[in-house]
Formats: sequence, C-alpha cells, structure tokens
Amino acid sequence: MTTFIRNAWYVAAWSKDIGRSLTARRILGEPVVLYRKEDGAPAALLDRCAHKLLPLSMGRIIGNVVQCGYHGMEYDCTGKCVRIPGQDVVPPKAVVRSFPVVERYDAVWIWMGDAALADEALIHRIERHGVPGWAVIDGQYQHHRTNYVIIAENLQDPAHTTYAHRSTIGNPAASEVPVKVEQKGNHVVSWRWTNSVPPPPIDRDLGGFTGLVDRCQYYNYFAPCVSRVDVVTMRDGLDHTEENMDLGQRAFSYKFLTPETEGTTHFFWMHVRNFGVGNAELEASLIEGMNRTFEEDNVICGAIQLEQVATGIRQHTFLAIDAGPARVRRVLEQMAANEIPTTQSKTEIS
Amino acid sequence: MTTFIRNAWYVAAWSKDIGRSLTARRILGEPVVLYRKEDGAPAALLDRCAHKLLPLSMGRIIGNVVQCGYHGMEYDCTGKCVRIPGQDVVPPKAVVRSFPVVERYDAVWIWMGDAALADEALIHRIERHGVPGWAVIDGQYQHHRTNYVIIAENLQDPAHTTYAHRSTIGNPAASEVPVKVEQKGNHVVSWRWTNSVPPPPIDRDLGGFTGLVDRCQYYNYFAPCVSRVDVVTMRDGLDHTEENMDLGQRAFSYKFLTPETEGTTHFFWMHVRNFGVGNAELEASLIEGMNRTFEEDNVICGAIQLEQVATGIRQHTFLAIDAGPARVRRVLEQMAANEIPTTQSKTEIS
Amino acid sequence: MTTFIRNAWYVAAWSKDIGRSLTARRILGEPVVLYRKEDGAPAALLDRCAHKLLPLSMGRIIGNVVQCGYHGMEYDCTGKCVRIPGQDVVPPKAVVRSFPVVERYDAVWIWMGDAALADEALIHRIERHGVPGWAVIDGQYQHHRTNYVIIAENLQDPAHTTYAHRSTIGNPAASEVPVKVEQKGNHVVSWRWTNSVPPPPIDRDLGGFTGLVDRCQYYNYFAPCVSRVDVVTMRDGLDHTEENMDLGQRAFSYKFLTPETEGTTHFFWMHVRNFGVGNAELEASLIEGMNRTFEEDNVICGAIQLEQVATGIRQHTFLAIDAGPARVRRVLEQMAANEIPTTQSKTEIS
Repeated sequence: MTTFIRNAWYVAAWSKDIGRSLTARRILGEPVVLYRKEDGAPAALLDRCAHKLLPLSMGRIIGNVVQCGYHGMEYDCTGKCVRIPGQDVVPPKAVVRSFPVVERYDAVWIWMGDAALADEALIHRIERHGVPGWAVIDGQYQHHRTNYVIIAENLQDPAHTTYAHRSTIGNPAASEVPVKVEQKGNHVVSWRWTNSVPPPPIDRDLGGFTGLVDRCQYYNYFAPCVSRVDVVTMRDGLDHTEENMDLGQRAFSYKFLTPETEGTTHFFWMHVRNFGVGNAELEASLIEGMNRTFEEDNVICGAIQLEQVATGIRQHTFLAIDAGPARVRRVLEQMAANEIPTTQSKTEIS
Repeated sequence: MTTFIRNAWYVAAWSKDIGRSLTARRILGEPVVLYRKEDGAPAALLDRCAHKLLPLSMGRIIGNVVQCGYHGMEYDCTGKCVRIPGQDVVPPKAVVRSFPVVERYDAVWIWMGDAALADEALIHRIERHGVPGWAVIDGQYQHHRTNYVIIAENLQDPAHTTYAHRSTIGNPAASEVPVKVEQKGNHVVSWRWTNSVPPPPIDRDLGGFTGLVDRCQYYNYFAPCVSRVDVVTMRDGLDHTEENMDLGQRAFSYKFLTPETEGTTHFFWMHVRNFGVGNAELEASLIEGMNRTFEEDNVICGAIQLEQVATGIRQHTFLAIDAGPARVRRVLEQMAANEIPTTQSKTEIS
Repeated sequence: MTTFIRNAWYVAAWSKDIGRSLTARRILGEPVVLYRKEDGAPAALLDRCAHKLLPLSMGRIIGNVVQCGYHGMEYDCTGKCVRIPGQDVVPPKAVVRSFPVVERYDAVWIWMGDAALADEALIHRIERHGVPGWAVIDGQYQHHRTNYVIIAENLQDPAHTTYAHRSTIGNPAASEVPVKVEQKGNHVVSWRWTNSVPPPPIDRDLGGFTGLVDRCQYYNYFAPCVSRVDVVTMRDGLDHTEENMDLGQRAFSYKFLTPETEGTTHFFWMHVRNFGVGNAELEASLIEGMNRTFEEDNVICGAIQLEQVATGIRQHTFLAIDAGPARVRRVLEQMAANEIPTTQSKTEIS
C-alpha cells in the first residue's frame, strides 16, 4: 500500500536550482519537469509528452512554452498544447498535467494532489525566517535511499543519537533522559527539558552563559513532510515562554521530506538560529556537521529498509523510546489511508 | 505478447565480423553462436550445449566442428553431435538446433523460424548494390536499447527530424510538408515531393545542379526488418521515373533491424548512393553524421520505451504525422499475431 | 524449491578471518554476524537487531556483548538482550537467534539448523590433518556465482577436466578412462585406478619413482557440503591399502561448499599432502594453480546456471559421465526434501 499523501505542499526544489532550463525530478513517484517562465515564476508539468510520452525535460524551453524534443509539440505552463507542427487542430487529449507551484522561503513548493485544494496558506510556516537577529542556512539537499516514513520516525527519535551519531553529535548522557510525547492533529511533538545545569562549552562560548541554564529539545513533526527540531539554552529561573526562549540561544532545525519513490526521498534541510549570526566559520562548521550527521541517518535508515523489505517485518520489539516515532508513523499511515483519490481530467495524461 | 516474427531473414552480422572463431549473439531472444566452416561458409547453432547447456561459444572450433568447453562434445554445422569423449553411443537427444544462414550483400542473414520455409529468394533485395556508378557504405552497427517496433515507427516518421535531430540533420522547413502513405502487403511507404525549387547547397555542390530541381524522400518499410529511405534530387520538368531519378542525385539509406530481446535491437545500417563515388572525405562525413543521427534516435526511443513500460500506455494522443508509423506498427503486430508457431524436432534443445 | 540443508556443519569462515570485530556473512540465505568473545571463542548471531532490524554488524563489540549501532541495545553471545538504554525492563521479544559454532581445522564451523541437533562429532573429519609428515594448505576462499549443487556436481565430474581446464590441469588422455561410482548413505565416491604405468614427470621429480607406478583418483562427496579428491601415485605391485597408499605420493584436496544464497556459494578449499613438505616454491605453485583451476570452474558453472534459469531446464542429454554428478545431486535433493523444518522459539526473530 502506498504511503504517499498527495494533498499537501512539498518542497520540489530550492529556488536557486530552478531557472530558464528544464529540470527533471521525480516526486511522489511521478516525473515532473520544473522551469521558470519569462517573468521568473516557477512552473511544473508532468514530464511526459501527451503524444508518445517522451520526457518533456529532453526538449527545450522557448519563451513561455515547453517544446517537446521529439515532434516539437508546445505546451504552456497550464499543460495545454498550443502548437503541433504540421497540423492546425490540437486534439483535446493533447494536454499534460500541470502542478500548482509556489515560491516561498527560497524554495519552490509543489502540490501533487487535487489542484482545487492547493491553498497557499497551507504552506508550512517557517519560524523566525526573515526576522532580524536570526540567521538562515538553506539550499541544503541530500538524496536518501529510504521511504520517507522511516526517515520521519528517525527524526522523531532522539534516542538514536548517542549510538548512530557517535562520531558527530552523539552524547552518551542524553540517551537516558526520557522524552514526553504529545499529538495535536497532524503535529506530533516529543520534548525534554534539563533544568538548572551548567552550560556545555559550546553554549558558554557562543551564548556567553556564566551561571546555570535550562536546556530543551523539541522534536516536532508536522505530517506529512516537515520535521522541526527546536533547541534552546536559556538562563535558569525564567519561565519557558516563547519570548524568554528567544532571549536564550535558540535554533530551529528543519527537514523537508519529499518522497521521490516508495523507497527513496528528497531530503532538504534548513537551519534558523539566533546565535553566531554573521559568523562564517560557525556556519561552515554547522553545514558540514549536519550534512555528516544526516548522511549517517541515511546509511542506517537505508540498511533498515533493506531488512524490512527482505523480511516483511517492520519492527520486531517495541521499546519505550518508540512512542514518538510510532505516533508519527500512525499519523502518516492514517493520512495516506484517508486520502480521497485525486479526480483528474479525463483528457490529461497522468 | 511477443512482437517477434520468426519466419523471415534477418541480418545476423556483417560478413567481416564472422570468422574462424565463435561469435555469440542473441537474436529474437535466442542465444546464437556464429562461425565459419573450413570452406568459409557461415554457420549458426543455438548457443547452448545439449548436455548441461553451457554456451557453445565458450568452447572452440576444430575443423568443421564446434567443441563444447565443458566435456568436449562436438557438433557439426547441422547441430548433430558427432563425438562424445568417453562414450561411443551418441544419444538421440544430443543435438542442438541449427539455423539457416546465407551470406549476401557483405552480411550474414539468418532465419530463426521454420527452416523448411527458409527460401533464399526471400532475402531483401538491396537496390543498386554492386551496380557500377554506385557506392556502398556498409559494416555499420549500433546497439539500440529499444524494441524494434518503436524503432520501425521512428524510421517511418519524417516529422521528428526537425526536433530530434536539430544538431544533425534537422530542417525546420521540412516538418510542415505533409507526406502521403500507402501500403502494399508488408511494404509501407510514406513520401513527399517538393518540385521546382532551388537546390540546397549540398546538392548544388555535389550534383552540379544549376537550375530548379524536384526533390523527394521515400520512407519505405519492408516488414519485418528492413527500412529504406530513398532521397532524390533531379532536374525539374522530368517525369519521376526510375530511370530519370537515377540520372539525378540519389541515395538509398538502409537500416536492418534485428531484435535482440523484446527491449533491445541490433541496428545495422547501409547506404547506397550515385554521387561523390570515390570521395573519401564525403564518405567519412556521411558515416560520422549518420551514426550521430541514429544515436540521437536511440536516446529518444529508449526514453519513450521506459515511459511506455512505466505507464502501460504506448501513445496518448494521435496526430496526423502518425499515419505512416501507425501503419508500420499495425503490419508488424498483425504479422506477429499470424505467425504459425515453429514446429521443432522433439530431439532438439530450443 | 530450496536446495538448502540446514542440519549440518558448514565452514562459516577461516579462523584467521574472525576476530574482535564484527564480520557479516550470509549463510544459507540468512544474515549472520561472526565475532570472537573475550576468551577468543567464536560466536554467531543473526545479523538483525530485534528492534528495528538494523544489521548488528553495523554496531560494535564491547567486551562480550554486541551493541546495536542504532539505539545501543546489547546482546550476549546467546542472542539474549542484556541492556536497553533508557529502560530497565527487557521485553521477552528482545532476543536474536544465535547459532552453534565450533572452531576446528583452522576454521569456524556453523550449524544453521536445529541447535539441539548440533553435535560436534558430526563435523567432517579431515584426513591426516596435523599428522607429522603431512603438509596442509588452508585459508583459501573463492566466491562462486552458482548454486552449490551445480558446484558439487562439477566436483564429482572428472570428465570435464580435459576441456574446462585445458590451460591448467587438463589432460587429454584422462578423459577417456571411465570411473566407477558407489554410494554409502551421504557419501558418493567415483574413482579410477591406472596401474603399472610410467610415472608422469611431476611424480618422478617429487616422489622419486624410478619404476612403474599405480595411480588413482578418488572423487568423494560427503553431502551436504564436503568434497574430497584423493590422488595417489604408488609403486606398482603393492596392495592398494591405506597404509601402502600413504607410502606413495598422496594428496587430499578438500572443498567446503557453504551456500550463501540459492545462486551463490562460499567456496573454501584446503589441501593435505605428504610430498614436498616444507617446499615453499611448490606450495606457492599449488595455491596459484588450484585457485586458477577453481576460478575456471566458477566461470563455467556460472554460465550453466544462467542458462538453466533462462530455460527452466537443468540438463538436456544424459551421458555416461553423469553417473557420479547425478548421484550427488540426487542425494542433496533427497536430503533437502527430507529436512524437518527447524522449530524456532516464538520469541526469536528469524
């Protein structure tokens, strides 16, 4: 059974990677061709000519149309064929599917489901993006060889850090502190606070903490495709309000999971922080460290998927630490099961 | 359902590529071993020993027999086992299938169907081959990653030239000139004449035309496996007879499609012309240009096949330009459906 | 239908290749992780954590436990989970299968079937191993791309030597001498004696034979996984007793076949001889020659398997030379069919 949820906004690409040429990318199992129109707005079509199915990405862009590289059929950004060389009449079936796309947060977001439901207001809101005093790292991409649900479980699972990331961010002490788990609709959050403790060296150096601190991690999953890990270090004794947390040292670590196939995932990540803003050395170190860490996850999740496929078993023993991950999986499976199949025009090739 | 048509002559190899060693080639899905006997005549056996199925091509040729590389069983060119080391009696099942082969036009032709039907007179006749004043380019081979029917459609489709061969032989004007299509039995022809036009530079230079010319292309497909494109440039005002066309600048461009598997094809090509005979520079340029052009087709047809397999759809919209290609496909599908299954000897391994 | 026989001892690895790190190897289709405990004894677990199935070989060894590289679960050498970070209770399902292993003859032997039947006395006895005056070559390994039954047939088949090993040990004369075949339970033996003949150069040089000799080859197969070829050259006129054969020039050539998957096999070999003991040059030459010879078998058997899979036919014609190989196949197929399925604990992941 598919785990895909079509009626949602997914990151299709970083803005910097889409231009006045044709970019092919498989999303939720479908071939998509992405490009920019003359006015710079992004567009997305099914990457399959309505004639003999040649990928349109093998053709070229001329003004605002995409010209197929086989017989020169030309499509506008709605997928309508506007020219067929050698004949005047365009048959009604000569149309390819187009997908709603919106550019926001330096990314192109795509809606693979029913276009009538593609409300821009549903695009996930990024915390503190564009707010003065906050720095953003984006444009980061990895190709993960795993179904996105396994990745989502892993992102909701702080317990693996000590063992899977021994060489990067692992911390033996942390694995023994239990987390609390809550769910509100499609949002699952696991978190833990460690209060009135001495600050670790990195927080002392960058945040200038001299006394005891309160520290927390929040692991948020907004189904179907956004993970956000919030990390705060703040002076102890203060209420844990949004405002007080912003006064501490705080970061929002985002991952946007866009399923490519049932077994592979486009893994986009973004990081928003209020410390070390303008510190290029810190930023380079964050990028390098996070990419290494996520690649460690990629290796582990890929190995797990191979065993799951080989055995037909997803998990054998359930542990206390599985509460958060299992909740995320349940939400995703429920959403996938509840999806109303997209009603597509009969004249479109899908 | 298979698209293979067994009762026909196919090019198995160019003569220059078969000698006194064992050459393995898969044809219509079957492993074949090709070689020459001591008298130079070509021979073809099923490439699978009747004992434990080792490919005979892994053995060696001794005089007129093929010796298996496992236990030394020896087969003559009819596939009969003539020696089994260590035993005197040759069991009746110790025989492999042999295939009729004929050498003609610098090629070895093979008949994969019922040997009783293998009439040499059915080998396709090559126009002007060996006639004084005509030059032949042959020995050309490409491996195409597509079912041969897709390739046959493409060869019957002049409309793709402008777009698919932009960097080689594409000509924007040509794509708007419609072609006529006719069928006589297994022969489909699409053609167009453009009369009383100035000669293009290449024809003026090579053919010495000073006034207006008539030009044509004929796209012939002789099912199941021969494509012939005829191109003529001649003085205007003359009747379009064979004799008058031969007085002009004329070429016959042959492709011989030999299915390897259901998804791949041996693509042999040959070119016969009455201009620039003895012009080595022209010939090198023709070879290089045609190989580049056919490789462009290979890329496009391969991409189309991938989409067709992925979707289960062969074609979504039908255009006016599809008349010729669709006719070729229909003829091939009809021939494949009508084939009487080969009655093979029960003692042969097939 | 599987050809695997689980209730038997197989060579899992050479002793030299297992140490204080985790070694992954697939055996009879199952992933196994091999390592040594602190006391040096070998251990083997199913290579699949009981939690989310990560291969345990991706974790690490700490003292006598294997720690999973995902969440740090720790297993002892019986497969029992002895620690789960972050929780005190170990659920009953948190156990992986362990396999009986025994170290003998410089190899680690494993029992993949019912552990209750794993009697060490059933490990195959190696002739003359450790006996003064006899030299042993071991530690030799090849990966063969063939089901082990095809390899077993090949090892019982002297008739292929002349043709398949032309460039190494092939001998045209030998192929015409018939062998006798006998079977006692799981032991099949084919043999031939050639009596009162002049010694071949190698025997004259190494064995110092001056007069006529008796020579023999015995091809033994001890199902399911041990092949032993005995070669003797002895003075003629003596009875062919064990004692007299030991006085001649004698070698036992062992191959241990451990199925990896249904289509691939771990091929371990060992050689025991009473001539040229301490002759390093001879030994290097034997190792090089035998590895080349077995690689020739690997190529042929792999090609045969491809054809067998493609055609669904195992063998087309039966010859006199097939008596020994066919007997070995029959024994193996019978043993596989008779195997009582292993009764495994319900709490184990398999």
